[in-house]
Amino acid sequence: MDLFEKIAANRGPLGSHSHYAHGYFTFPKLEGEIEPRMIFRGKEVLTWSLNNYLGLANHPEVRKADAEGAAQYGMALPMGARMMSGNSNLHEQLESELADFVQKPECMLLNFGYQGVVSIIDAMVNRHDVIVYDGESHACIIDGVRLHAGKRFVYTHNDMESLEKQLQRAKRLTDETGGGILVITEGVFGMSGNQGNLRGVVALKEKYEFRLFVDDAHGFGTMGATGAGTGEEQGVQDGIDLYFSTFAKSMASIGAFVAGPESVIEYLRYNMRSQIFAKSLPMPLVVGAIKRLELLRTQPELKDNLWTVVRALQSGLREKGFNIGTTTSPVTPVFLNGQIPDATQITFDLRENHGIFCSIVVYPVVPKGVIMLRLIPTAAHSLSDVEQTIKAFEVVAEKLDKGLYSKTEAVPAS
Amino acid sequence: MDLFEKIAANRGPLGSHSHYAHGYFTFPKLEGEIEPRMIFRGKEVLTWSLNNYLGLANHPEVRKADAEGAAQYGMALPMGARMMSGNSNLHEQLESELADFVQKPECMLLNFGYQGVVSIIDAMVNRHDVIVYDGESHACIIDGVRLHAGKRFVYTHNDMESLEKQLQRAKRLTDETGGGILVITEGVFGMSGNQGNLRGVVALKEKYEFRLFVDDAHGFGTMGATGAGTGEEQGVQDGIDLYFSTFAKSMASIGAFVAGPESVIEYLRYNMRSQIFAKSLPMPLVVGAIKRLELLRTQPELKDNLWTVVRALQSGLREKGFNIGTTTSPVTPVFLNGQIPDATQITFDLRENHGIFCSIVVYPVVPKGVIMLRLIPTAAHSLSDVEQTIKAFEVVAEKLDKGLYSKTEAVPAS
Repeated sequence: MDLFEKIAANRGPLGSHSHYAHGYFTFPKLEGEIEPRMIFRGKEVLTWSLNNYLGLANHPEVRKADAEGAAQYGMALPMGARMMSGNSNLHEQLESELADFVQKPECMLLNFGYQGVVSIIDAMVNRHDVIVYDGESHACIIDGVRLHAGKRFVYTHNDMESLEKQLQRAKRLTDETGGGILVITEGVFGMSGNQGNLRGVVALKEKYEFRLFVDDAHGFGTMGATGAGTGEEQGVQDGIDLYFSTFAKSMASIGAFVAGPESVIEYLRYNMRSQIFAKSLPMPLVVGAIKRLELLRTQPELKDNLWTVVRALQSGLREKGFNIGTTTSPVTPVFLNGQIPDATQITFDLRENHGIFCSIVVYPVVPKGVIMLRLIPTAAHSLSDVEQTIKAFEVVAEKLDKGLYSKTEAVPAS
Repeated sequence: MDLFEKIAANRGPLGSHSHYAHGYFTFPKLEGEIEPRMIFRGKEVLTWSLNNYLGLANHPEVRKADAEGAAQYGMALPMGARMMSGNSNLHEQLESELADFVQKPECMLLNFGYQGVVSIIDAMVNRHDVIVYDGESHACIIDGVRLHAGKRFVYTHNDMESLEKQLQRAKRLTDETGGGILVITEGVFGMSGNQGNLRGVVALKEKYEFRLFVDDAHGFGTMGATGAGTGEEQGVQDGIDLYFSTFAKSMASIGAFVAGPESVIEYLRYNMRSQIFAKSLPMPLVVGAIKRLELLRTQPELKDNLWTVVRALQSGLREKGFNIGTTTSPVTPVFLNGQIPDATQITFDLRENHGIFCSIVVYPVVPKGVIMLRLIPTAAHSLSDVEQTIKAFEVVAEKLDKGLYSKTEAVPAS
């Protein structure tokens, strides 16, 4: 069969909706500065879609550092992979500062978070080793696990009994193969907002020999007394053997890092395929990350403001009877039951009639029959933004209860 | 076994040399602007290590565009995955211009080249399909192939008989499974410098049904009458079904794109995991790429200058008896026989005594017992740079012939 004919016939779970979704529900354009109020299709909307947790994206010091970094270095420098020709003092300085911040001996910068996670997993294990991972892990973890030539056991999300069962299986297997066990989970799960049960996982180290890799993309900068992440929040930062975060959320940039013991990080420098064989993080992104990290350290009010907004939003929604699931982080999902056409009409109503822009998440990211509207509060939002949003959600919920959405026609995309 | 103990005992093929290589042979720091003459450990060196083929990294118009893009937008915008909240008119404009430039109907920007290739391959095939790929393919292609749940057949590098044999195997298999065949090769192989035999591959389409995916990282901007790449160079651009290039070489940036038929590119937009689940290309990189592409189109003298330097360097080296292999592109390898200690001494001699900085490539990138010094000429180099370099290589080669390197002591890294 011709591959392209196959693709013409099967557009994939998301692609099958593109004919009406594209440009509105998918691939929307938010214009203007990254602020709570941005422009969507020519109209101002109150935006809850961006992981700009600490409001750094448009912070004047960040904007200044980004502009100066690009003016001084251009976007090309340094060229080549870090190992070949792409190293610099600033890359090393940022690594050292990040290691200190997350309380680990050593740190390695990564040119992009997604491929960073994939290659960390790939480099850490061989076919004799076993991976045990949380069932709700992010796509980048899944892709890393898919590269693994040995066994992988999945445990039910945050279920420590299930984890222990899988650890027992892994132990039996590695006793035979002579391999080791890598447990992988996340600090904060970006869809549900609940924290990985890191304390529970770390406690199992007393009974089983394994190493723990945590992707803390949503926890870095938002969780813990100093913002060092979900390990700090739960008092088990030392129990995390390899700590990862992207710069794409709190740090409002791209790139990422992994931190851990010196010898393991040095091993990763020389064995991560996506880093050995691809370009180093450009200098303006390094300079920009140094500034962002400085603000994380020196302006704790950013995190305080974030949490003020988070608490107001989540308690407000709960008070009005909304199901926001099990979140214990800034990520605020609002779960509704319905099919995709209901979801699109609600989203359309929110955007067009209430000026509220939030992302709609459907299958395959959430199960079939579930609609998730995901709100990401940030330090830049105000309490009146929260109030306006909860009011709009009340109106929408009433309309949904009365079955008014299902009676309206499908919404044209453009 | 403890995973970290395993790592402490086995540092990997490159990591096992880190104790003497780090900071000098690996992870060196080239300081100053990206120009032929840069600073290495406080001394000026003539640099042949950077894939800055057209000299755009430090081109005044590029530097201006990079600075202005970052000043106007900051490095954060847009936030989120392209599909969720990371789309913009400028992303679409760049896609449209790239599609025109490489003579394809449609184009999709990618947030990073390495993970872009991995996810393209992953999205294009399922377990019923068969991948047939060139044996010298880049690591990102290999990682994409590793994700494939179906069969993969490798053909001997550029050997059309071997390819045909693998296509026959693939045909027999897909006749059973009902799947399709994806052939993957590169436009220019970045280590040897030889071109993928695209004409030969495309000719086989008359006998076999397959789709061709070409990674033209080193060919984009350097090959073909208009710089549209290796397909244009060989007169078979139409036979390439999916054309990929990174921005990390000629474009002197990061990010990448894939171009092909409208329906396939639309499918990829909705099915590439590294794009659906990771952040969009930042705006300053998009603005910078629009400027770079404009220069590719409007300043053909950049490519002419590159090739003047390439021809002088390659013919000069050949005249002096150096083995530069089978290159038919700007990539200029110089192959020497020897073990890693010989290679390090030659590299040290070149850098310290001749002021020539080139990258040293050893196993596992090249076979054991082979040393490759790789020279990357650029439009920014001069003919006197070429002359100086060939003279230095002559001195070094004579010393190697006389066995003088093996008699000296190992070089301390710092």
